[in-house]
Amino acid sequence: MTRRVALLAHEGLPDRAKTAVGVLRYADAEVVAVVDREIAEADPDARVTDYVPEVPDAPIVGRVADAPDFDALVIGVAPIGGGFDESWRPDVRIALEAGADVVAGLHYFLADDEEFAALAAEHGGELRDVRRPPDDLTVAEGRARDLDAEIVLTVGTDCSTGKMTTTRELYEAARERGVDAAFVPTGQTGIIIEDWGIPIDRTVSDFTASAVERMCVERADHDYLFVEGQGSLIHPAYSAVTTGLLHGAMPDSLVMCHDAGREAIHGYESFEIPNPGYVAEMYESLAEPIAPTEVVAGALNTSGLDGETATEATKRYRAQLDAPVADPIRDGAERLLEAVL
Amino acid sequence: MTRRVALLAHEGLPDRAKTAVGVLRYADAEVVAVVDREIAEADPDARVTDYVPEVPDAPIVGRVADAPDFDALVIGVAPIGGGFDESWRPDVRIALEAGADVVAGLHYFLADDEEFAALAAEHGGELRDVRRPPDDLTVAEGRARDLDAEIVLTVGTDCSTGKMTTTRELYEAARERGVDAAFVPTGQTGIIIEDWGIPIDRTVSDFTASAVERMCVERADHDYLFVEGQGSLIHPAYSAVTTGLLHGAMPDSLVMCHDAGREAIHGYESFEIPNPGYVAEMYESLAEPIAPTEVVAGALNTSGLDGETATEATKRYRAQLDAPVADPIRDGAERLLEAVL
Repeated sequence: MTRRVALLAHEGLPDRAKTAVGVLRYADAEVVAVVDREIAEADPDARVTDYVPEVPDAPIVGRVADAPDFDALVIGVAPIGGGFDESWRPDVRIALEAGADVVAGLHYFLADDEEFAALAAEHGGELRDVRRPPDDLTVAEGRARDLDAEIVLTVGTDCSTGKMTTTRELYEAARERGVDAAFVPTGQTGIIIEDWGIPIDRTVSDFTASAVERMCVERADHDYLFVEGQGSLIHPAYSAVTTGLLHGAMPDSLVMCHDAGREAIHGYESFEIPNPGYVAEMYESLAEPIAPTEVVAGALNTSGLDGETATEATKRYRAQLDAPVADPIRDGAERLLEAVL
Repeated sequence: MTRRVALLAHEGLPDRAKTAVGVLRYADAEVVAVVDREIAEADPDARVTDYVPEVPDAPIVGRVADAPDFDALVIGVAPIGGGFDESWRPDVRIALEAGADVVAGLHYFLADDEEFAALAAEHGGELRDVRRPPDDLTVAEGRARDLDAEIVLTVGTDCSTGKMTTTRELYEAARERGVDAAFVPTGQTGIIIEDWGIPIDRTVSDFTASAVERMCVERADHDYLFVEGQGSLIHPAYSAVTTGLLHGAMPDSLVMCHDAGREAIHGYESFEIPNPGYVAEMYESLAEPIAPTEVVAGALNTSGLDGETATEATKRYRAQLDAPVADPIRDGAERLLEAVL
């Protein structure tokens, strides 16, 4: 994508609009506006950089109708369950009526929506559902451990702990050093950024490991593969996906992502997050009989913490993991990359 | 099903035709013939009980055309990957031309096959693909641990170690004792037998835990739920499904199934099966942060072993697990049930 994009992020910016933030940070696109009615209502002059640091700036508007011209509307929020929020319908409608494409990573496929399909056909826009997996997937062969490429997988103590960001920052830092690296996206944001990839959480469960195996095999001519993790081994809903990734990618090393402020699974508050060191051991134990690996570094999400608190949290996380720790956004990814290479 | 059934099991009987054997053992149906061309060619007078002990007898024929009249053809073999073997096409065609239903648990849906769909429509038969999950699944809520019912899940050191059989034998033994028990099928065979259930390995991976959670909630008015396990935590292709089941069912106890002769993952011979006691600990560790549970008994598949070797294997498995052990087919399920209740 080297085109003009509007990002739909109602009630999402910054923390509940992972896809919007990912596109702002990493995509090869010009973001003309972020659409968040909550923010725009409170402050009509709001700018993206008030909410997301160190990205190209853009206005925040209340509805798509108020955005400058764009080529594609990207749905930048992913509610739990991946449904389509009917309150977004007028915005999508206006984008399609203007002839723009609409890109989404929802479980609900926009192309299957009769109104949207008709509008796209009428005005020449494309409905691109990146969460639709290829239909020729089959079962894994157990091949990834035999690939020459060094495979690095991010794992986490929960969803939304920064796995996509960490993977992407590691990949970009490696490339800057001249390392022959590839990014293997497994979720909607990464796939939208990379314009390639399989949405691992949407595959048939028998084929989850196979989907990541296939991507690693396709990129095996690189020296390093940075595989975007999903979910968490201790998540009551998403642990299946995480396990399929771990056993399908057969990584040489793991980087474990944790949110400094998080004490329970997001949205499942009765499920406590145990000591991250214990969670790291769980990942290593589960990998052991299939392809042994190790948590070699920890990525700590300290967004929202002041400097001193962040430093303390980093120190604590380092002790828990007994491995190098950094916040890839606050501190950069260099220290993590050192541990991986 | 209280009707006449033919079982397609080419090159499968007895060990590679799990569904055929399951239907023979447990379904409320009259099996008029098993179709296995390999056996029928070698011995035109072959009978089912030559291969599967203690089931109602039936002839083994080489093709569906040679079977006595039946109401439904059940595909009783499940090849790795769950595809449709084109060499079965003439048999399915003949069944449909005779007006029979065809019941299958393959990943390949017969109802999507143009020729079969046309034949079924023309002759009034039904194509029933039990591996098609409901389309309204969503993410798990983490509810199963709060249910009053005692939930028992079978787990294994590999696929095809006897999880369906063990679950079914436990369920039937419990019912014989007057325990208010329900059977929760998660795979094609169990669903065909029970005429209810969700094929857990065919759900979207994000919804795997949710599918078993939904079934447990639906049956929660029983005192005991016997949940059929799938795959194995140490399987390079299917561990995602196993994890989803463990975290979705949140079982109160586990019964671990192992095949006495098995040293490596079936079909993945470079993946060794570690000490079963170690595998049991892996299940317990993975369950711990979500809903703690314990392997309370071991089901050992000793089919094909002589009495003395079976006894030795049982003794070894008991020491490895430090829990009661029995082969539910050879020894009955009583000892295992005692450990569970």
